Amino acid sequence: MTSPAKFKKDKEIITEYDTQVKEIRAQLLEQLKCLDQQSEARVQLLQDLQDFFRKKSEIEMDYSRNLEKLAERFMAKTRSTKDHLQFKKDQNILSPVNCWYLLLNQVRRESKDHTTLSDIYLNNIIPRFTQVSDDSVRLFKKSKEVGGQLHEDLMKVLNELYTVMKTYHMYNADSISAEGKLKEAEKQEEKQIGRSVKPEDRLVGRSPDPAANIRFEEKHQRRSSVRKIEKMKEKRQAKYTENKLKAVKARNEYILALEATNCSVFKYYIHDLSDLLDCCDLGYHASLNRAMRTFLSAEINVEQSKHEGLEIIESAIDSLDACNDKQRLMELYHTVFCLPPKFDFQPHMGDGVSHLYVQQPMQGELVLRCQQLQSRLATLKIENEEVKKTMEATLQTIQDMVTVEDFDVADCFQYTNSTESVKSTLSETFMSKPSIAKRRANQQETEQFYFTKLKEYFEGRNLITKLQAKHDLLQKTLGESQRTDYSIASGRRNSSVRKQDGNQIIPLVVESCIRFIIRHGLQHEGIFRVSGSQIEVNDIKNAFERGEDPLAGDQNDHDIDSIAGVLKLHFRGLASPLFPKEIFHDLISCVSLGLSLLGPNHCVLW
Amino acid sequence: MTSPAKFKKDKEIITEYDTQVKEIRAQLLEQLKCLDQQSEARVQLLQDLQDFFRKKSEIEMDYSRNLEKLAERFMAKTRSTKDHLQFKKDQNILSPVNCWYLLLNQVRRESKDHTTLSDIYLNNIIPRFTQVSDDSVRLFKKSKEVGGQLHEDLMKVLNELYTVMKTYHMYNADSISAEGKLKEAEKQEEKQIGRSVKPEDRLVGRSPDPAANIRFEEKHQRRSSVRKIEKMKEKRQAKYTENKLKAVKARNEYILALEATNCSVFKYYIHDLSDLLDCCDLGYHASLNRAMRTFLSAEINVEQSKHEGLEIIESAIDSLDACNDKQRLMELYHTVFCLPPKFDFQPHMGDGVSHLYVQQPMQGELVLRCQQLQSRLATLKIENEEVKKTMEATLQTIQDMVTVEDFDVADCFQYTNSTESVKSTLSETFMSKPSIAKRRANQQETEQFYFTKLKEYFEGRNLITKLQAKHDLLQKTLGESQRTDYSIASGRRNSSVRKQDGNQIIPLVVESCIRFIIRHGLQHEGIFRVSGSQIEVNDIKNAFERGEDPLAGDQNDHDIDSIAGVLKLHFRGLASPLFPKEIFHDLISCVSLGLSLLGPNHCVLW
Repeated sequence: MTSPAKFKKDKEIITEYDTQVKEIRAQLLEQLKCLDQQSEARVQLLQDLQDFFRKKSEIEMDYSRNLEKLAERFMAKTRSTKDHLQFKKDQNILSPVNCWYLLLNQVRRESKDHTTLSDIYLNNIIPRFTQVSDDSVRLFKKSKEVGGQLHEDLMKVLNELYTVMKTYHMYNADSISAEGKLKEAEKQEEKQIGRSVKPEDRLVGRSPDPAANIRFEEKHQRRSSVRKIEKMKEKRQAKYTENKLKAVKARNEYILALEATNCSVFKYYIHDLSDLLDCCDLGYHASLNRAMRTFLSAEINVEQSKHEGLEIIESAIDSLDACNDKQRLMELYHTVFCLPPKFDFQPHMGDGVSHLYVQQPMQGELVLRCQQLQSRLATLKIENEEVKKTMEATLQTIQDMVTVEDFDVADCFQYTNSTESVKSTLSETFMSKPSIAKRRANQQETEQFYFTKLKEYFEGRNLITKLQAKHDLLQKTLGESQRTDYSIASGRRNSSVRKQDGNQIIPLVVESCIRFIIRHGLQHEGIFRVSGSQIEVNDIKNAFERGEDPLAGDQNDHDIDSIAGVLKLHFRGLASPLFPKEIFHDLISCVSLGLSLLGPNHCVLW
Repeated sequence: MTSPAKFKKDKEIITEYDTQVKEIRAQLLEQLKCLDQQSEARVQLLQDLQDFFRKKSEIEMDYSRNLEKLAERFMAKTRSTKDHLQFKKDQNILSPVNCWYLLLNQVRRESKDHTTLSDIYLNNIIPRFTQVSDDSVRLFKKSKEVGGQLHEDLMKVLNELYTVMKTYHMYNADSISAEGKLKEAEKQEEKQIGRSVKPEDRLVGRSPDPAANIRFEEKHQRRSSVRKIEKMKEKRQAKYTENKLKAVKARNEYILALEATNCSVFKYYIHDLSDLLDCCDLGYHASLNRAMRTFLSAEINVEQSKHEGLEIIESAIDSLDACNDKQRLMELYHTVFCLPPKFDFQPHMGDGVSHLYVQQPMQGELVLRCQQLQSRLATLKIENEEVKKTMEATLQTIQDMVTVEDFDVADCFQYTNSTESVKSTLSETFMSKPSIAKRRANQQETEQFYFTKLKEYFEGRNLITKLQAKHDLLQKTLGESQRTDYSIASGRRNSSVRKQDGNQIIPLVVESCIRFIIRHGLQHEGIFRVSGSQIEVNDIKNAFERGEDPLAGDQNDHDIDSIAGVLKLHFRGLASPLFPKEIFHDLISCVSLGLSLLGPNHCVLW
């Protein structure tokens, strides 16, 4: 046992307890305050989110309206144009115009999407945040109520502890005081016993004595006082035992209350507080999650829609095709571009001969002329072939220049990682590069050279065409005159040939079908491979046999495959085949050799 | 040979020719006009594209500025808040606030991207279209020049045909006239011969005659006239032969020129015209393609950037987590939420006994009390477990309500296929559904019930905690008193335990480590599994052995795994193990049974 100087006084203990409880009480208040703060912060955040989406909704609506106006402005402009009418009529427009229409469509599509986005912000996302906010406020209020209840309970436990501690102090003080009194009684008893025993010892040692009677009197007196003291001591002992038991019981209660309090405090701090915070959060994160996911869903849908539109534009860009556009243009203005009728031989004053006269005395001269033409043509063709090669190489250079892949602008978007230096990386992407100007100058120079060569080539080709025509006619007629015994015409006089003028050596059906195919069918996929309508083939064939020309005029209301079918039928029906039997196999091997030289991608019509 | 009535007159032939040539000439002019039209249309299209992108650039810039303003407005507001300062300090913010910041970041990102887009429109795409336009105009001009040249050449060929036709007409006319004259001479000769032969026939039949001399005179005269006629006939024959040859030659030339002309016309219409159109298109489609691809590239980059941002937001939404936020909050306000010091036993007036006194005469009463507590607790626990189950089921219902996946707004974007009815499908997506209001009422009702049950549960738990604490202490102390021969304390007096007050039965190292782990480590992944730093473990252990408490105060500058390591080391070092050897295997089978009941996902700390 330690010395009494180290005892804490009752007051000290009470003060210490009070301090500890006061601290806990302060902490509990702070906790409620903290909940309030959290609630306020949450409501503020949700308010900010609502304001944010309200403002963003306006921005999106604004953007949408501007896009709509933009699209409408150009739509209105194009709606009246010839191209557009053409487009409405047969959906057949030039590929750049198609790109342009799709671009406007895309703007309209984006406009609509941003309207929808704005609408979703206003009528779906903002109400969600409002609800989350309402829920939060309500939950915080309820949680605070529960928290208040918990605090009250905790305070009750602490008060209980105070009470049992005070009881312990009281009973322990009683016990100590009873113990003190008992000790005092014991001390007195000891003193009394000591006094009565000593005289008797003396008495035993030196008797008799003159004062013996007086001593006996005294002795009697002392004995009754000892008895008194003993009685008192017994009383005090009983009191002490009783008080001691009470004190021990009180201490036991104090210790039990102490344990209960500590456990309750622990439970409150470790479990209840955590549960309380969970109550405040009940559904908050999940509802926020859903609101934010609505936002994500809307944005991703806008993105997907935009992407779909861009893919349509991309496929239109892929179909930018000069060759198809040329074909479309020629079809559109077919009266302007169609081949005029041939110049026919006009016999003068009933001149009965409509072919070259190659008998004597002309023959020698014409043979010589034909030979001269042949050698002249050979030279011209070689020369022009050279020009053509140069021209084509130049064209290839230009093609390479105009198809350089310089359109990737990903660099401009690299800044997204380093958010600071934005402006510096921009604007120097396309025009400010010095190489661009140089490239353009180079391109125009090449173009100039190309046109020079083109003119040269055209000139050469004009001459060659004229001379070749003359040469071919001469050679053919000279050849025919040499084998007049051959009945060339017999094979050509087929049933489907109209009764012809003497000078018409190409049957009408052949000429008319070929003219039609050249005008309308050169881009037709599967020509001479796909079979046409048997009914139409028969109709056309019968018309030719009646001497009519069903393909006259510029109308394109026949199936090109059927026309090709008529032509094939005509050649198949010839008495002697177009390619004589004796050279058929030689021709086939020639063709297959030619095909292998041309390569697999080349389309051979005949 | 046909009758002369069917002959075309020269004039007719010339007129026919003129008409045909005039038609061709008109067609050629139309062709040039058509090129002009195409050129104009092309320039107009490119001008429209430039205007379009200029206007769209403005719209994008406008949109970008609005977004920037929006972001800045809220950024400025949040920058001053406590959360933001906290965020700046240790990047440790609540998950909803994180979402909010990322949302603002996304707006800034989009703002920047649209600025870039606007810039690319202005400084890359528009200049491209300008160039394409310039190139087109130049190429059309040059192509028209070439076309003019070709037309001139064609006209030359046609003129040539005219000339040779006229020559043929002239020579043929000459030939016909010479033939006529020859025929006339032949007729005269015939007549003369007929006259001179008849008289002689008569002469032979009826000679001599009185007029014989006169007839002889006549005969002589006639003979000289026959000679004259014969001479003239010869002359005329020669003239005819000469003219006939000239006519045949001229006809040959005419036929050759006809062939050449027809071939030239054919070549022009079939090849030259096509080549000319190719020249006009030279590089046009390719350059347009590049300009449009620049647009595509820019749009796709904007899209990708936006998508990246949305993915960041999505992962922030995924990390919306109530549990982590609670942890963060408790760390942030740790003085408010930390467990207060325990209430210690305060001995009164030097009372030396600090534990429950369970000897006689208290023992019987305490044993009884302990038993009563036990049975009371059993009842209470069963009751409270029921309340808890109801409460948890209610909570699950609420969780299901707040996590319903109602955030997909793809429906709102369905209109993109049918462009007409846009407005009708909007706005009825979220709020106007009658089920929403019903759902919310239901949710609040459930919430109310949950809170009722929660309060009930808390009350029960409070009581149980108190009684359990008392019961446990009683039971333990009664148990200890029954086996006082057991030296329980010996095992606890390990080297790492500070010299303790008599009443401190839990070693400081255990209490301190556990307090630290409860405060900072309950969310720590891998606690008690991951081994900490051996150096730190030794440092902390040594400090505890020196009697210090290295984990006192609220600082969290220790590695949680090391703290867990210290605790494990302490238990491992106990002379007699925490779980007595004799019951070790029973415990293990208990634990494995418990684990299998809890299921594989449950995290068990101890």
